[in-house]
Amino acid sequence: MRTLTKDTANKVGEEVTLMGWVHNRRDHGKLIFIDLRDRWGIVQVVFNPKNQKLLEQANQLRSEWVVQISGLVKERPAGMQNPELPTGKIELEVTLLTVLSRADDLPIPIMEEGTNEAELQKRLDWRWIDLRNPKRTLIFKVWTTMEQAFREYWTGNGYIEIHSPKLMSTPSESGAELFEVQYFDRKAFLAQSPQFYKQMAMAAGFEKVFEVGPVFRAEPSFTARHATEFTGYDVEISFIESHQDVIIEEEKTLIYVLQKIKDEFGDKVHEVFGKELEIPATPFPQVTMKEAKEILKKKGITGERSGDLSPEEERSLSEYIKEKEGHEFVFVTEYPVRVRPFYHMRLESNPELTKSFDLLWNGVEITTGAQREHRYEKLISQAEEKGLHIEPIQFYLNFFKYGCPPHGGFGHGPARMLMKILNLGNIREVTYLYRGVNRLEP
Amino acid sequence: MRTLTKDTANKVGEEVTLMGWVHNRRDHGKLIFIDLRDRWGIVQVVFNPKNQKLLEQANQLRSEWVVQISGLVKERPAGMQNPELPTGKIELEVTLLTVLSRADDLPIPIMEEGTNEAELQKRLDWRWIDLRNPKRTLIFKVWTTMEQAFREYWTGNGYIEIHSPKLMSTPSESGAELFEVQYFDRKAFLAQSPQFYKQMAMAAGFEKVFEVGPVFRAEPSFTARHATEFTGYDVEISFIESHQDVIIEEEKTLIYVLQKIKDEFGDKVHEVFGKELEIPATPFPQVTMKEAKEILKKKGITGERSGDLSPEEERSLSEYIKEKEGHEFVFVTEYPVRVRPFYHMRLESNPELTKSFDLLWNGVEITTGAQREHRYEKLISQAEEKGLHIEPIQFYLNFFKYGCPPHGGFGHGPARMLMKILNLGNIREVTYLYRGVNRLEP
Repeated sequence: MRTLTKDTANKVGEEVTLMGWVHNRRDHGKLIFIDLRDRWGIVQVVFNPKNQKLLEQANQLRSEWVVQISGLVKERPAGMQNPELPTGKIELEVTLLTVLSRADDLPIPIMEEGTNEAELQKRLDWRWIDLRNPKRTLIFKVWTTMEQAFREYWTGNGYIEIHSPKLMSTPSESGAELFEVQYFDRKAFLAQSPQFYKQMAMAAGFEKVFEVGPVFRAEPSFTARHATEFTGYDVEISFIESHQDVIIEEEKTLIYVLQKIKDEFGDKVHEVFGKELEIPATPFPQVTMKEAKEILKKKGITGERSGDLSPEEERSLSEYIKEKEGHEFVFVTEYPVRVRPFYHMRLESNPELTKSFDLLWNGVEITTGAQREHRYEKLISQAEEKGLHIEPIQFYLNFFKYGCPPHGGFGHGPARMLMKILNLGNIREVTYLYRGVNRLEP
Repeated sequence: MRTLTKDTANKVGEEVTLMGWVHNRRDHGKLIFIDLRDRWGIVQVVFNPKNQKLLEQANQLRSEWVVQISGLVKERPAGMQNPELPTGKIELEVTLLTVLSRADDLPIPIMEEGTNEAELQKRLDWRWIDLRNPKRTLIFKVWTTMEQAFREYWTGNGYIEIHSPKLMSTPSESGAELFEVQYFDRKAFLAQSPQFYKQMAMAAGFEKVFEVGPVFRAEPSFTARHATEFTGYDVEISFIESHQDVIIEEEKTLIYVLQKIKDEFGDKVHEVFGKELEIPATPFPQVTMKEAKEILKKKGITGERSGDLSPEEERSLSEYIKEKEGHEFVFVTEYPVRVRPFYHMRLESNPELTKSFDLLWNGVEITTGAQREHRYEKLISQAEEKGLHIEPIQFYLNFFKYGCPPHGGFGHGPARMLMKILNLGNIREVTYLYRGVNRLEP
């Protein structure tokens, strides 16, 4: 029966069996110590100098070997205690040692940070060793809690889960940045988002759906926030009056999720990543794209593209809102038609603008959302206006021909959100195995 | 403020606004009734014959139009009540009607069953209309609960969630049945399972992981239980002693999930699908492949392939176990090396056999699992023995060179499990949008 390292501290006087990695070995002549690491912590293991056979075994141990160690949990001698570690007052005196797996010399040091380009690439090459650093394991513990919290909100509020296909016969979005698949004797494409299929669920009367799954973008992009494959969270809800209903629902969701993460990991995240997680006040600040551009103009910042925000503009806008309203989040609304896809609904008051929004968190876009156009004739004319061929998207347009409620939703990037939660600057750090133009391995 | 149909029954005397689909319209001369359907039920709506304008509006309504209706909730006249419906004692007297979306005449009838091949294909062609049938919506409500229950078990028991990449530079399993992707100027492949990458998490010290995601199989298969893309649940755990530890963990997981589904949907599933959901006793029965073949031989059944079970053999074996032990589940263990992949660990007592298992539920395989070989040299020799080229899988073999604990896990098919929960015979029924050799649409 295995005991976890975290459970040893209150087992003084008991015989236990620990399993884990040799974190390091300290050879003090006749006395040998090792630190044994498992996912839950570290325990100091001491070899009794009187037991020659065990000492010989201990002498062979090297870093990162995997071992099973039985022994007696004892209090450390008074001067040897480390009150800062949860297991700093105890040690394990070995009675039996079994090597479960040996290790070659490590190609990378697991406890170092290395974030320059060469170091990062090397860490990604050896990702399974890189992830042994408890700081990095923590990232994925937080991810697990984050995703489950989103799902608790959704399942607790009447959403139905869908798993839409990633293999499509036609592009789901623009047609650009598509991966092509050889599908038996024809071509298929990898879905760039579940957009069409979550809208199909609205036509099917599911009313509220969510999806968690991979999205694929053949973008030749090398930034710190793009990947060719990443996990997307998608939401779509029916019977809304405008995109403001979607915004309110997203705010509620995010508050629920951030509170859960703060409750479970707030202290740990602060200790390890130096980030104090604050629960934002609702409603989040909003600016229209027009207002955003005016704010930026006053600050002397002009982006390349009118009607859309460059990364620099996103950062400046967030800084402005942070300063002015003390809020880390800002919804940017009313994007012009020309920078949004054909299916975004337009404002009644100004058909040049869409009922759409992006959500920025401290300068990074983490969500794109909108009310969708659900009226068949309007969709056709909006698609034609964008110069799209109708035939390849006819299957999608059909969703709106047999009764489809007004609806809207958003696509959310959990990796980008986690970057903000943990104050990390690169999406590669929060992705289990990053995929980019030059990276398909390991 | 919208009221859901299910909440109207206790609002007699109140003004409410309902939104949903015109389920049907009954024209009794001067009196018009419609049944309004939303995801939660149906409410009878009556138009006051004195209000000529409303009657004219009602006359235009057709099936599946989407409407918003405000009115007064009233008790139905004594003789008109239907006590079998949750809303059978009330009706809504309309004061205001707004059409949100019109509908063409339906290409398929939504309330009919149609399961012969031509009917099924037509239903899949018009899947978003097919799914409006409340019986089919129910399938995905149960899926939502099923998946969340699995995840509650995992997150409540210290598992870390991973999202492994679906784009790989080399095949994840056999090399056959692979979809090829054009990846910028090179080739990539769609993952046939997260196998290699969930094992990588063991080498990374994550100890317990799960993944939910799509898996892709370029199988030219047309059976009722195969698809080219489907959702897989994957689990991997470290520091096991044998595949029996994996089996015990799977049993615990399934009991938790089935109890959750029974609690939430047991009555409804029985009413709609005629299936009484039983919580299986633990431990589940087990037979080795050798024993299974002996049992089948006595029943006069021989499969094409020694060491593996044909669909007919799976059914017969399950029948036998059901009869003999009264159990719907059976683990088949100790598959011979020749029918298992190179990374399955072998039995110490007989190196011709693997520490592997399949789980059958009422004649259908829903899980495949094993202890994996974690010793680098043995893995190399097992791969070579299978005639594999080492170079393309070297990245995977490297996971085992720097200290990797003993581990094992399983891959589970939620769609097949749901078929058994609901007593449905075709995986197309429990898949949101089925993908097969001849089906990439809608």
